[in-house]
This record gives sequence, structure tokens and C-alpha cells, in this order.
Amino acid sequence: MPLHPPAQAGQRFSEIDTPALVLDLDAFERNLVAMAAYTQAHGVRLRPHAKTHKSPEIALRQIAHGAVGQCCQKVSEAEILVAGGVQDVLVSNEVAGAAKLDRLAQLARSAKISLCVDHLDGVREAAEAAARHDVVLDVLVEIDVGGRRCGVAPGEAAVRIAEAVSRSNTLRFGGLQAYHGTAQHMRSIDERREAIERAGLSARNTVERLAQAGLSCGVVSGAGTGTYEIETGSGIWNEIQAGSYIFMDADYARNRQADGTPFRAFEHALFILTGVMSKPVPDRAIVDAGHKAAAIDSGMPMPFRREGAVYTKPSDEHGVLTGDPIALPHRGEHILLVPGHCDPTVNLHDWYVCVRGMHGPDAHVEALWPVAARGALT
Amino acid sequence: MPLHPPAQAGQRFSEIDTPALVLDLDAFERNLVAMAAYTQAHGVRLRPHAKTHKSPEIALRQIAHGAVGQCCQKVSEAEILVAGGVQDVLVSNEVAGAAKLDRLAQLARSAKISLCVDHLDGVREAAEAAARHDVVLDVLVEIDVGGRRCGVAPGEAAVRIAEAVSRSNTLRFGGLQAYHGTAQHMRSIDERREAIERAGLSARNTVERLAQAGLSCGVVSGAGTGTYEIETGSGIWNEIQAGSYIFMDADYARNRQADGTPFRAFEHALFILTGVMSKPVPDRAIVDAGHKAAAIDSGMPMPFRREGAVYTKPSDEHGVLTGDPIALPHRGEHILLVPGHCDPTVNLHDWYVCVRGMHGPDAHVEALWPVAARGALT
Repeated sequence: MPLHPPAQAGQRFSEIDTPALVLDLDAFERNLVAMAAYTQAHGVRLRPHAKTHKSPEIALRQIAHGAVGQCCQKVSEAEILVAGGVQDVLVSNEVAGAAKLDRLAQLARSAKISLCVDHLDGVREAAEAAARHDVVLDVLVEIDVGGRRCGVAPGEAAVRIAEAVSRSNTLRFGGLQAYHGTAQHMRSIDERREAIERAGLSARNTVERLAQAGLSCGVVSGAGTGTYEIETGSGIWNEIQAGSYIFMDADYARNRQADGTPFRAFEHALFILTGVMSKPVPDRAIVDAGHKAAAIDSGMPMPFRREGAVYTKPSDEHGVLTGDPIALPHRGEHILLVPGHCDPTVNLHDWYVCVRGMHGPDAHVEALWPVAARGALT
Repeated sequence: MPLHPPAQAGQRFSEIDTPALVLDLDAFERNLVAMAAYTQAHGVRLRPHAKTHKSPEIALRQIAHGAVGQCCQKVSEAEILVAGGVQDVLVSNEVAGAAKLDRLAQLARSAKISLCVDHLDGVREAAEAAARHDVVLDVLVEIDVGGRRCGVAPGEAAVRIAEAVSRSNTLRFGGLQAYHGTAQHMRSIDERREAIERAGLSARNTVERLAQAGLSCGVVSGAGTGTYEIETGSGIWNEIQAGSYIFMDADYARNRQADGTPFRAFEHALFILTGVMSKPVPDRAIVDAGHKAAAIDSGMPMPFRREGAVYTKPSDEHGVLTGDPIALPHRGEHILLVPGHCDPTVNLHDWYVCVRGMHGPDAHVEALWPVAARGALT
């Protein structure tokens, strides 16, 4: 039995059922243009991360604006992107085991597919899968540039893996994956700059050692919405993997620019529309968006343009708005929340309700886009 | 394009793709029987909460063991339960607005449907929807017994709402919803007992005032897996809404019994099976279950039977296992995690991979059950 979508194209904004994931198309399109213009002006390729949006609809719009392709984290995401028309996908992650690698190799028959490795066993498994399916896979060696997650140590250890890749008949060495995840959310520009400068030294050193070994790094890929200007300016990275810029969540809005003001390169374009189901006392409004509608791993969602109201204490199906009673919505009213973290919030919803003219009198639903790769875990 | 399910019936346990939501059928069935036996022995009705499992397959098994029906939190969950064959559903929550109430009233044509109200406007809206669809809706008045979420104040305020319900031709006053959510996760039995005893005083007082007003409370419904023995022993509640008992998450396992030992009435039956995609250094294994596979609102998932390994620092698609290098799995190995909180974790997955004989040599996939109400938000 399919779920009721929360809206239909053509409806007025006020008719959207709650909770719903709402995309402000006008702000989204401005964000698309802003990042495309920035990367083109600075001579780096843009390969946006599809783990943010999980949607071929959005991927194809990014590509129409000049992006070279997409990144994703999982084979199942790559499958959905290719089925949706994306021709160049990098799985910016390790892929372990024959079952997953067979699926990835099959995909390489209809699109350019790259993946990351950080271990000699991963090189062997990927080479064997590519051979089984008679394809060539592009491979980036992932180095740990400070995030302490996946990635081989920079320098000689990375060179040994790249050499193994280049010796394989079914793999093509593409370059380095050098992404610093934890740097994205450091609050001050100085912290972020220091982290990325250190990452850049590791990447540059590895590029040089690879060159000494006769291996050319076509691609040095990395960066996110929190740091892309630093990687772009470094002369080391030539491919930018930012994803969140299209939506701008509450957590990225807490980052600060050099002058101490909030990070404002992009606009909030993604919201959770939620309704008040109960208002038992004047200083507490209970909304219908809890853990099932909004991820809280990077902080609570933030009431939008509603000074004095604070979202707190979510349970599975409830959120509590407290604060100044004057700021709180009444029973039955709908309000907008800015997600604390877009990527896992999007993963909770089946549909983007795409709204045109959202903050004006003619706000209406222009389209529904499926979150096609929601739940794509494997 | 449908997602690959992570397994097929008949496969060996070792063949399940990762990450996957795995149900240990043997432990699950023992939990089913244990709660059914307890509530029957103590003369209270069991109406398990479907927000835990989101699955008619599981609901019907609970009903086959004597449960009177199901609770859920959303109209869309009720729709899926009724479509799956459940004949008695309580939406243990407020439902605001004509659109949602129309759907609920339509459902009352094919099943017994109850809902909660905590405001006179909610009574009016529900009565109007029932009239539009020519049905009668059963209504519980929700009182706030200490959770400070939804619910009218106990006593006279609740009586006024019950009187409004009883005056309506299309509503039937059923009794009280008296659920204390925050008490479920208080760690010591003394704290939980004190909270529930206070809640019981509020409920009893309201029942008595209703009786003075000529209104009989057929149902006093509430309780959860953390406190059901206290409500059952109170003589006030006659319907138990526990849900998590079938799965037993890591958070409930942190509750303590009277003797200070962990709460052990039920077994861990639900797991996230995850694979190691990278092991860059001996004391760090990176698994493929992050925020998209495991909810962390009630703490991290817990490696199962793997003393010395700790799950930490999840990102969207990665979890970090640290601890004693001897305890850590190798690259490519699969391990089990006990979810920190079952309900929102289940909501991230499309399938229960149901395993028979899970901890034995013949462990195999007996069935795949869809998480039919995953994403049922409205």
C-alpha cells in the first residue's frame, strides 16, 4: 500500500499536509547558480555529493549547471543515479565484498564509475569484480587527511596502493580522494583553514611521491560546503564534492566567516513543514515533526523566521516548541523548520514538495520529486 | 526503481548484505509470548504500540497472542495497519485538521478506530469529520500525567472535554489516555515507580470526577516497556501500550530492576547487521552503518557480544568502532549492533530480514517482512 504523498502539484502552499519536506525552488535555484559560478570562475570541477539530496532530479540540474557528475557513498545510490540519467558517478567511499563490487562493475557498463580504495585487499576485490564483468573501473586512493575515518596514511602507503591499482588491467588509477569531513563543521574560519591547509600538505606530498613513482594524479577530489573556498584556493584540489550548499542546513549556518558573521554564501532552501497538533499551555506547542521527520545528529531543527520560538525535546512523532508565548504558533497552524542536518533529514522523507514563490502570496506546489535514493543503504 | 532488498528468504545468515535490519525470530517469539503471558496473568488488556514495528506482520502476531488491537501515532500508520488486517486501532495521539480527520473517519468504515483529544477544538473537528463520513469515532481524552507533551490537565479540564465528547452524536467517549513517556527511560525502578504513582493519582482523580459527572471510563490506557509492571499493578490502568518489548533496544537495557541488575524481562531481538568497509589502523574499524542505518537519539548502537568494542562517531554512512584491537572485526567482517532506540531505527529500513536460529550454525533467512509503515508521517 503506497503512502499518501503530502501534497499534489498545483496545490496552494497552505494545503500541504504535515509533516512534509519542502523545497523552496527559488532559493534552491539561486544556490545552484551561486556554486556553479564560483567553481567555474575559480577553475575547479564541481562534483556535488548526492548523499545530500538522493535525487536524480537534483543531480541532473546540477549537471546542467556545469557539474561534471556526482559523488555518492553507496552502490545502491550509484544505481539510482545512473538509472536516473547520471553518466559519471564517483562512489567516494570504500566498497567491500564481491556482492557489492559486482553490482558496481555491472553499472560501469552504462556509465563512468569510480570508487575509492584504502587497502590492497580492496584493490584486488575491485579488480576481480571488474574482470568478471569485463569493464574498467576508475579508482581513487583515499588518504586520511585528518578526519580519522577511512583512508590510508598519506605518502608511501598511499603510493603502494596506487601502484597496485596501476598494475591491474581492469582498474585505472584516477588520483586521490582527500576529504576532511570533520573540518566542515569547525565554527571559525581559522580552524577550518588550518585543518584544510594541513590536509593540503598531506595531499601535495602524496601527489609528489606518486609523481616520483611515475603515477600522475588526474584528480584530487574533496572539500565540502564548509571549506570549499579553502580547497579551491589551495591549488591542490581540482574537484569539489560539496553537497549541502543546495539546501543549507542549520548546522552550516552556525559556521562563521572571516569577519565573524554567519556563513551566508547560500540560502536556506530546505524546510520541514510541521503542524501544531496540541497546545496544552500557552508556552508549549506540540508539532507533528519528531525523530521520524527531522534528524538531530547535528543539533535541533530551527524554527524559521520565528524569533523567540525554540524547538526542543523531540520524541518519535512529536516536537516541543517552547519560548515566548507570543512567538508560538496556535493549534492547527503550520510552521517551517530549518533541518539541523539536511542529509539524514532528507533520508526520512519520500518526497520533496517543491514550492514556487514560497514566501509570497502565490506560494504553490510546482512539483513533487521523489527522494529516489532514500533508504539506499547497501 | 525499487531498492535491492538486503537478503532473500532461504539465504544463509552470512549471505545477508549490509547494512540490514535483522530480526532474531526465536528471541522475538519468546518476547511475544512473555508479554502476552504477563498481561493475561494480571488481567489487563495489551494494545501494543505499532510505532515500534510499523508492520502488520508483527501486529497480527501480537493479536494472535491475545492483544486487543494496536496503537499508533499517525493516521497514515492506522491506514497501513487496517489495510494489513488489523481491526482495532487507537491513534494514541491528537489529530489536528479536517484533512487528516477525514482520512481517519473513512477508515472507521472498515475497523474500530479510536483517537485522542486534549482540546475542545479537537472534539469539534473529530465530530464534524465523523458526521461527514457517517461513522462513529471512539475518543479517549488525553491527560498530561507528567510527560509535559500533549494532554489536557487532569481533573476538571479533562471532564469538560469528556463532556463535550459525550454530547456529540458522532463520537463515543471511551476513557482516558494516560501515558507517561519520560518515565519509561528513568534508570532506577524507584524513579519510575514514583513517576507512575503520581501519574496514577492524576488518572484516578480524573476517573472519579468523570464518574461524578456521570461519565464512565471504559478504558484507561497507557504504559510502556519501561513501566508496564507498575501500571499493571496499580489497579488504575486496564490497557497496556508497550511496544518496544518485542525488540528490546540498548536504551531499555540500561534500565535497572529493583535489585539494581539490568532489566531482563525481554531479549534483544532486533539488530543492525553491518560490515567493515575499512580498517585503516588496528584500533579503528569503519562499518557501513551510520545515521542512515541507526538512530542515535537515545544513545549509540551497541556492538553485540563483542566485549571491548565501542561504536562511536557515526556520520551519515559510516560508524567508527574503537576499543581493544583484539575485539575489533577485520575488514569485510559482519557484526551485529543492538540499536540505541528501536522505533526510529526501524523507520530507516525497508525490510526486516527475519532470521531463524540466528546464533547457531544453521542461521538462515526465513522471511523478509516489509516495514510497511516506514515513512508514514502524516
